[in-house]
Amino acid sequence: MRLVVIGGVAAGMSAAARARRADPSLEIVVLEKGPQVSWAACGLPYLLSGRVNRPEDLIIRPAESFQRERNIGVRTGAEVAAIQPSRRQVALCGGERLAYDRLVIATGARPERAVAGADQPHVFTLHTLEDGRRIRAFLEEQRPRRAAVIGGGYIGLETADALAERGLAVTLFEAGADLLGRADPELTRRLAEHLEGQGIELRLNTPITAVEDLSAAGAPAELVILAARLHPNVELAAEAGIELGRTGAVRVTDRMETNLAGIYAAGDCIETLHLVTGGPVYLPLGTTANKTGRVAGANAAGARERFPGVAGTMIVALRGLAAGVTGLSPAQARKEGFQPTAVHITAEDRSRYLGSRPTLVELVADRRTRRLLGGAVLGERGVAGRVNVIAAALTAGMAVEQLAQLDLAYAPPLAPVWDPLLLAARALLKELG
Amino acid sequence: MRLVVIGGVAAGMSAAARARRADPSLEIVVLEKGPQVSWAACGLPYLLSGRVNRPEDLIIRPAESFQRERNIGVRTGAEVAAIQPSRRQVALCGGERLAYDRLVIATGARPERAVAGADQPHVFTLHTLEDGRRIRAFLEEQRPRRAAVIGGGYIGLETADALAERGLAVTLFEAGADLLGRADPELTRRLAEHLEGQGIELRLNTPITAVEDLSAAGAPAELVILAARLHPNVELAAEAGIELGRTGAVRVTDRMETNLAGIYAAGDCIETLHLVTGGPVYLPLGTTANKTGRVAGANAAGARERFPGVAGTMIVALRGLAAGVTGLSPAQARKEGFQPTAVHITAEDRSRYLGSRPTLVELVADRRTRRLLGGAVLGERGVAGRVNVIAAALTAGMAVEQLAQLDLAYAPPLAPVWDPLLLAARALLKELG
Repeated sequence: MRLVVIGGVAAGMSAAARARRADPSLEIVVLEKGPQVSWAACGLPYLLSGRVNRPEDLIIRPAESFQRERNIGVRTGAEVAAIQPSRRQVALCGGERLAYDRLVIATGARPERAVAGADQPHVFTLHTLEDGRRIRAFLEEQRPRRAAVIGGGYIGLETADALAERGLAVTLFEAGADLLGRADPELTRRLAEHLEGQGIELRLNTPITAVEDLSAAGAPAELVILAARLHPNVELAAEAGIELGRTGAVRVTDRMETNLAGIYAAGDCIETLHLVTGGPVYLPLGTTANKTGRVAGANAAGARERFPGVAGTMIVALRGLAAGVTGLSPAQARKEGFQPTAVHITAEDRSRYLGSRPTLVELVADRRTRRLLGGAVLGERGVAGRVNVIAAALTAGMAVEQLAQLDLAYAPPLAPVWDPLLLAARALLKELG
Repeated sequence: MRLVVIGGVAAGMSAAARARRADPSLEIVVLEKGPQVSWAACGLPYLLSGRVNRPEDLIIRPAESFQRERNIGVRTGAEVAAIQPSRRQVALCGGERLAYDRLVIATGARPERAVAGADQPHVFTLHTLEDGRRIRAFLEEQRPRRAAVIGGGYIGLETADALAERGLAVTLFEAGADLLGRADPELTRRLAEHLEGQGIELRLNTPITAVEDLSAAGAPAELVILAARLHPNVELAAEAGIELGRTGAVRVTDRMETNLAGIYAAGDCIETLHLVTGGPVYLPLGTTANKTGRVAGANAAGARERFPGVAGTMIVALRGLAAGVTGLSPAQARKEGFQPTAVHITAEDRSRYLGSRPTLVELVADRRTRRLLGGAVLGERGVAGRVNVIAAALTAGMAVEQLAQLDLAYAPPLAPVWDPLLLAARALLKELG
């Protein structure tokens, strides 16, 4: 029995590792088109800022060690040209054919590059370790002073922050009205305020279709990073007859099965179930890639595991501020047919006499059912923990009443006696009446 | 209609404030035997360490402002001698009688003082603002170099840490085998390790019944703080015919009603429902005091609110370490008739390439139902947030499977792609088989 995994970053390597534990006798081959497997894509911004010193520091486990320690064959520079399900084989670009019994597709995503002039030497995407290496070299050798970052999602925000940390004058462009890809004016307003405080110029509602637009917009840049939205790499799958979902990403069951027997998919190329809406969503994130990769690997190796879905949790970490979201924003909730009510409160993040800082909490609930639908937290400290509590509450289908009564930890240096989450839940109860 | 509230710290003032909002026309009188109302008891250790500069900094809202801004009468130095339910009045120590229509008992708790020699001038409890003031003066005037703290609960731990921060040589005595009042050897071992690293000497299984025992134990002290367990102040209630529960604290309904009509109780003098065991528990904590106070005040003023119970969440914040617990430890779970299985894992608290630190996570589940029963988290950062997620999961009655699948936030500077909670839940799933 041979398992072939296409793609060797988060989902692919998770699948391979989990499959190995599930079946020690399985032959496992990972095909990675790039030069590296098992590296931390989310660490790329820190390579730019200098907080991570060398590209190699982002490698989680070298390719050789998979072979040596786990008996997982890893082939880098191995690009798949086609999947041939009827023959149960994949065709590699060099012409080679490789048979499989089980296949895991973990082809990931790619950043939007549809910007005229993107082939110029000062224009980059920040997606692969090679990208990181090239930008880092460019920064060190060319010493650009002005940068433009295209895209106000978490990658764009973290990249803008990293370049500003390095001392560049940064302008961040977002085609739409919102940051973090979340229709949420209040969250965008607070993030914008913070960015401006950090000297990062923000241009919302400013689509950039050509590098030349930057000069026209009064922001000529010596370095341009394209960080607009990610597109799932579905071409190989689609050409092989694998069904895509309505988000455009590969459709899978909760066991990561595609519509073709023996073929699984995981990571940034698939859509997942949103636990709040019950519908599919395309949210390419490292956490989900690792989790779905594990489930795909387990099932491909004969174990039985499932992935229930995502709450839509995402956090962005900037200097002096983190912003996290989970579930639905009011606008998203309305679009999904809910009757959302939302509150935004600002509260102290610990006891005032120990130097508290304000934290913003947004909570969204459905008027009809009083069920929590989503939330956002923005502040200097404790943001991840608070977003995670909201995510747990969403997963449990909690009503706002229950959230307002949670027994949350209190210690003056860490959290106030009334946690901002509880105050927000109380405010939301008032709104719900 | 007159509402009388006995006790003006967390529960009492919360009750008064909530009652005022529920009924603007109610006459409200708070009787506080001490000189101060509305102050932050949990801030006392920071007064000792010096992180809080003046005792006044712990006053949340001065007594006058309740009268002025909220039309709440506050009488300090007003000690109640008896509650006379048949006459609907309270008798004050000076002989005065005060009639009530509704009564909220928020008499709090007191620390154990049953130690021979406790009346010596270098022996203190740390319970009131006056205590804090006196110890602070003693520290500044007498400049003691060696301190003993009696009691290994959260107050004892924070006090020992505060005195050590101030430069004193501190020995911490605990009569039992466990710290934080939780039968949990692993948690105690890690906390003990940390304390020793901070130069605090820890003596477990060492009951101190007389101040002289300290010298006999080789730890003569120029300053002794009695921080052993709290006893609920139930005498007034009990003498008035109000029922106590089996924990020895006042028994109340989920609306904070005692067995006597029109009389409510809240805060450190009551027992609450434990959401995991379904039974009563005595856990005197600031969060619960504020919450139950609000509910008592609301209901006493004619609104209808309820307090569902506690998960048993508690966190202690030391220099360089926080330790939080919620739900049941394995030993507590066994005692409650569960079939507990537990795991302890140590995992990185963020991405390794950004300087992670180890975090300990303990999770406890029931073998029969696979339901989560409790957990503990110990580490430098992110402890409160992780404990809160466990508390939310307990409140929702989650099975371990569901916890293991939570969509938790990931950003390299804040949390690793596999949060320690998820790794612990996975390890526990393996144990459960």
